[in-house]
Amino acid sequence: MALIVQKFGGTSVGSVERIASVAARVKQHRDQGDDLVVVVSAMSGETNRLIALAREISDKPNPREMDVLVSTGEQVTIALLCMALHEIGCAARSYTGSQVHIRTDSAHSKARIMDIDRARVRADIESGRVVVVAGFQGVDEQGNITTLGRGGSDTTAVAMAAALEADECQIFTDVDGVYTTDPRVEPKARKLDRITFEEMLELASLGSKVLQIRSVEFAGKYNVPLRVLSSFEDSGAGTLITLEEEGVEAAKISGIAFNRDEAKLTIRGVPDQPGVAYKILGPVGEANVEVDMIVQNIAEDGTTDFTFTVNRGEYEKAREILERESAELGAREVVGDNRIVKISLVGVGMRSHAGIASRMFAALSEEAINIQMISTSEIKISVVVDEKYLELGVRALHQAFGLAEESTA
Amino acid sequence: MALIVQKFGGTSVGSVERIASVAARVKQHRDQGDDLVVVVSAMSGETNRLIALAREISDKPNPREMDVLVSTGEQVTIALLCMALHEIGCAARSYTGSQVHIRTDSAHSKARIMDIDRARVRADIESGRVVVVAGFQGVDEQGNITTLGRGGSDTTAVAMAAALEADECQIFTDVDGVYTTDPRVEPKARKLDRITFEEMLELASLGSKVLQIRSVEFAGKYNVPLRVLSSFEDSGAGTLITLEEEGVEAAKISGIAFNRDEAKLTIRGVPDQPGVAYKILGPVGEANVEVDMIVQNIAEDGTTDFTFTVNRGEYEKAREILERESAELGAREVVGDNRIVKISLVGVGMRSHAGIASRMFAALSEEAINIQMISTSEIKISVVVDEKYLELGVRALHQAFGLAEESTA
Repeated sequence: MALIVQKFGGTSVGSVERIASVAARVKQHRDQGDDLVVVVSAMSGETNRLIALAREISDKPNPREMDVLVSTGEQVTIALLCMALHEIGCAARSYTGSQVHIRTDSAHSKARIMDIDRARVRADIESGRVVVVAGFQGVDEQGNITTLGRGGSDTTAVAMAAALEADECQIFTDVDGVYTTDPRVEPKARKLDRITFEEMLELASLGSKVLQIRSVEFAGKYNVPLRVLSSFEDSGAGTLITLEEEGVEAAKISGIAFNRDEAKLTIRGVPDQPGVAYKILGPVGEANVEVDMIVQNIAEDGTTDFTFTVNRGEYEKAREILERESAELGAREVVGDNRIVKISLVGVGMRSHAGIASRMFAALSEEAINIQMISTSEIKISVVVDEKYLELGVRALHQAFGLAEESTA
Repeated sequence: MALIVQKFGGTSVGSVERIASVAARVKQHRDQGDDLVVVVSAMSGETNRLIALAREISDKPNPREMDVLVSTGEQVTIALLCMALHEIGCAARSYTGSQVHIRTDSAHSKARIMDIDRARVRADIESGRVVVVAGFQGVDEQGNITTLGRGGSDTTAVAMAAALEADECQIFTDVDGVYTTDPRVEPKARKLDRITFEEMLELASLGSKVLQIRSVEFAGKYNVPLRVLSSFEDSGAGTLITLEEEGVEAAKISGIAFNRDEAKLTIRGVPDQPGVAYKILGPVGEANVEVDMIVQNIAEDGTTDFTFTVNRGEYEKAREILERESAELGAREVVGDNRIVKISLVGVGMRSHAGIASRMFAALSEEAINIQMISTSEIKISVVVDEKYLELGVRALHQAFGLAEESTA
């Protein structure tokens, strides 16, 4: 008898009918003998409805109150799902983030989970109940309601699985697994049966949007086997995300990720001196703006150009901060571009194979795609290009690395 | 500098615009120097929307989960109101029932407040914040979310006022005070400047619907001055509800209440023996069905007829219980009528004046209204009549006791 944590996202619980069908699925699994903890998101559209209400009142709603507001979305779902489970004779009990003590830090709308109270959930499981937990939300030391940010329900699920030492964490989504790239951009994209945490981390963080990045970090850190499945069809085993296994020959490249929501900021002509990077990025980080790629070039005149990318939604905020610092640092100017995208090649095999980068650049060059920034890690290479080249770039790379089904058969 | 608790109901916070106007009103009051605790209900329509979702899933939704569901309604309002207060420069902080430890028993959907944690609210007040509390909800010993039942936000407000030893508890509603009867039924109804807790208790419990009965009980018990005001117009001082004061000559009759939501159940031919009333009503009470009027007649054959009234919404439930007991008790039959209403005459003056009852019965008799049940207390007389006589009966009594404005001038 295994302990499984299952997570159903907003689309899967988007209506009363869908909630009933999630309940049926949960019961079916429960009847096979496994213990289940189910994490759910707000019904699709609900979070946006709540945010819209807040925006009617204020352009910059108070972050603490915003979390009080939006956390009601998941609370509605847990109650409805438990009712649906009771209706078909399946014992179940719901918990909000506060009730099950999902303790987080106090960074409203972007909180991080510190700890989870296992005792209450364990007691329910032992008494035969399915435990239904509100995703995306927690509570800080002072009892304030916090949220983990968009997609945070995945993180809740993995954190629950880690805390309870569950056998598997299953993430039900509207896709049936992880693909070599987004099939809407490249119809030849192929579903992967397995992928490593590291690769998934790069794919998720780079915009594949199947799983929330922090959930994969968590899963990797606590070695929680993670499975991505479709919530709509019985489409088989989905994609299993695990530690890299010996003996399995790693593919050179497992996928191509991309992110449309990028923006680029450059601060030009900063007098080069020790600590300049910190002086630039410190205040940006303090404002809770996440920085992605960072590139610094030293010019011949002893000044430096410093470029980084942020989420497009935080472009204005980051730019404001940078304009203020620019004067203080004696920089020449701040320029930005919020019409860029990032395309990344990901694969653990990259470590042991030279020549991947040059093949990538060649493929893009053949299509006359100008590369604006480059960043590399052990298992990925990312490039920033003009947003108009996104689809063309992804298809060119998918082709160049032979990721399509027919070429790997 | 006084400490005032203000409560705004669902209609007062029924849209983003109305929430903004409540915020403006709160700030205006705050700027005059008083400390404020504001209790709010769910936006009008929201609770019904949530209940409808639950009903789509189940005819009898689990009560614990129902409370988890509907309590989100007020949580949305507290967040939006705080945002609106911040927007106009008024420091404020929201609390759910759990967060401010409104400790209740575990009777889901009908919980009673046992205790409130003062410390957190006091600290906020001392730091200059307006404290915004979700009405209608609490938390039991085990951390389960509970609700106080319809209208429970009034009770929350009074309980907060009592716990904080507030100077006044102001209930903002869609009426500008307490009237001698419902002006929609009798256009000559007159607004009362003052009324005693006892009278208000009878008026509220009998269906005047201005205030929730438990809130008035609480207010009387802790001697919290209670004021009913209009949330839409600056219509003056509303109606103040206080202890009976010496020196003020009490009016014989202060008002006429009525309740359309009544149903009557009779169990006929019960062998009369000690404890029969308990045997009949015990299981009804255990099922959390509230019983209102009770009448028992002993017949000549040594059996007894036992009649009581319940809320119309609980008629079927009570009837089911009664049918079960009927067999056990050896009763002849169970009959019921859910097309009845109750009309009541209320006034502290009744104590010292004989003849009120006979004048009441005479007035109804003149209109040929048949009285089905009678029940009296020190300050009220209630009759049950066919629902078709409601308006006629109320107007006849209003006239007979000279309650209209012109007759008391």
